[in-house]
Amino acid sequence: MPTLAAGELQDLVGRIFVAAGAPAASAGIVAASLVLSNLKGVDSHGVMRVPEYLGHIESGRIVAAAEPHVERKGAVVRVSGGWGFGQLAAREAALQSAAAGREAGVAVATATEVHHIGRLGEYVELAAAEGVVALGFCNTGPPGGRVAPFGGKRAMLATNPIAYAVPAGSRPPIVADFSTSAAAEGKVRLMHQNGLQTPDGWLIDADGRPTRDAGALYEGGALLPAGGHRGYALGLLVELLGGALAGAGCALVGDAPGNGLVLVALDPAAWGHRAGFLADVDAVAEALVESEPAEGVDRVRLPGEPEAEMEAVRRVEGIPIPEGIWQGLVGAAGRLGVH
Amino acid sequence: MPTLAAGELQDLVGRIFVAAGAPAASAGIVAASLVLSNLKGVDSHGVMRVPEYLGHIESGRIVAAAEPHVERKGAVVRVSGGWGFGQLAAREAALQSAAAGREAGVAVATATEVHHIGRLGEYVELAAAEGVVALGFCNTGPPGGRVAPFGGKRAMLATNPIAYAVPAGSRPPIVADFSTSAAAEGKVRLMHQNGLQTPDGWLIDADGRPTRDAGALYEGGALLPAGGHRGYALGLLVELLGGALAGAGCALVGDAPGNGLVLVALDPAAWGHRAGFLADVDAVAEALVESEPAEGVDRVRLPGEPEAEMEAVRRVEGIPIPEGIWQGLVGAAGRLGVH
Repeated sequence: MPTLAAGELQDLVGRIFVAAGAPAASAGIVAASLVLSNLKGVDSHGVMRVPEYLGHIESGRIVAAAEPHVERKGAVVRVSGGWGFGQLAAREAALQSAAAGREAGVAVATATEVHHIGRLGEYVELAAAEGVVALGFCNTGPPGGRVAPFGGKRAMLATNPIAYAVPAGSRPPIVADFSTSAAAEGKVRLMHQNGLQTPDGWLIDADGRPTRDAGALYEGGALLPAGGHRGYALGLLVELLGGALAGAGCALVGDAPGNGLVLVALDPAAWGHRAGFLADVDAVAEALVESEPAEGVDRVRLPGEPEAEMEAVRRVEGIPIPEGIWQGLVGAAGRLGVH
Repeated sequence: MPTLAAGELQDLVGRIFVAAGAPAASAGIVAASLVLSNLKGVDSHGVMRVPEYLGHIESGRIVAAAEPHVERKGAVVRVSGGWGFGQLAAREAALQSAAAGREAGVAVATATEVHHIGRLGEYVELAAAEGVVALGFCNTGPPGGRVAPFGGKRAMLATNPIAYAVPAGSRPPIVADFSTSAAAEGKVRLMHQNGLQTPDGWLIDADGRPTRDAGALYEGGALLPAGGHRGYALGLLVELLGGALAGAGCALVGDAPGNGLVLVALDPAAWGHRAGFLADVDAVAEALVESEPAEGVDRVRLPGEPEAEMEAVRRVEGIPIPEGIWQGLVGAAGRLGVH
């Protein structure tokens, strides 16, 4: 499979989106966001999305020229994406939540009327780079859901991710980003495509019975919530925050054509001890990474470290792109006259 | 074992705390909080705590007469408990977060210099009764922790709970409250006392090997985080919010003599659609409880419903108090001259 340097890949994807009608600045942001997901090793949110996005531009589901509209009242920021690329509105929400949070001590930014925002972790990390602790929630589709409630037999909720980023003093922010289901849907899809079985505890079949058949998810089965009642509760929270509070709509009960993003920003300075806070985060991080690892584990990692390690490797060695995805990109470029 | 009416139990506990030096109003709040946990079926946070609290009053760790001190700057509320009963400061933080949230759209209240606050769910429910969506985080002890990090062998984090409450239109708020560990420590302790084995996935022993021996937790073993890397990430977030941001201190790296509470309140009205929000919550709740249950389950429940069902039963049938706990209460009452 081809391996591309991040800059090269980003340039190609950016030119594809420009050719599809996106303003250069927008195309650059979306391309950088997708490539950053590849760099982090989250390929399900990377450039494999390009053909999907182009299809949505063609069908009118994504308005390539739309710019996010920001409305701010004190500590509450509402971003409307105008059905443009989700990345634009999500990025705006992240920066605005941080700015408002630095002013008010606490702030919330929501983004609605947006298509797929990409990887949620990107936005909490962006906010944390501005000095705030950021909590992120994003409700998603598809209509009908993918995840069974705890004690239920049918898919009702989406994989609704949660993320956070906490600034540290002498190391990068601690970043966590995970689905509230036992596994992300993309992982199950990949296993299904490769004829692999899923681990125990991920899936139930159409009769509600535990199964390791990845295909069951696409034949009336469902993902289980992560950690039973805990993941169910968290997935429901994300649904109610992104769908009902932010107003993106809940796929469970009606139309939810896009993502609903909620970002909460907390400024440690509002508690009067910014330096102490950063020192505490450093000390906790240090204690964790220096603690004794389990058998077969080289060392204890902080949330986000595996992705950061992958990014360090791929920035040097390039991003491997599976042949099918590469052909999709090349084909799109050809059709749009991008060389 | 004796079964007591909630009012009767609350009255007894309140008089015990008054006799131990608490103002009547404070004693009433703490007694009501403990009994509410018993009503909800969360007996680990109920009146079995009375002898522990009395011991702390005697040793000076709880200042029975202390009143919480509130400092508010816009949307940020800081409550200092003055090392009084945690319930007083936590209750104040809940009410203040809701009031500030209703004004600013979003607010955060923290409580520090507090002993054990009790059941975290109580405070998000209290805030939600004032109309806000409430998110709660509380870091706890003991020093050294009880929960291993994902990939780790040693207890580092506490069971650090997360809770939320979301107001609904035509039903009670949806309330979730759970530890970020695979199980609460109290459950393991009870199984150990009763000679029972724990389910798979809860514990590792002192060598980091999976075990079902409940006693392993007290011989150098550790609880596992709920759902692997997810529970680890959430437990760490709670540690950094309650310990580093709110300033209660992190048991992991130093002294954390009390709880550190963080409550975030979001007012749906700030998004201009309070009625629509409540209707959406109702619709999502309805769809979930009416969805097909798994085999052996009578119906799908919302988070908090099992506790509400228990409360309905115990309000009518009374609260069963195990003999040992009852003797503890009677003994304390006798020593303090409470009849």
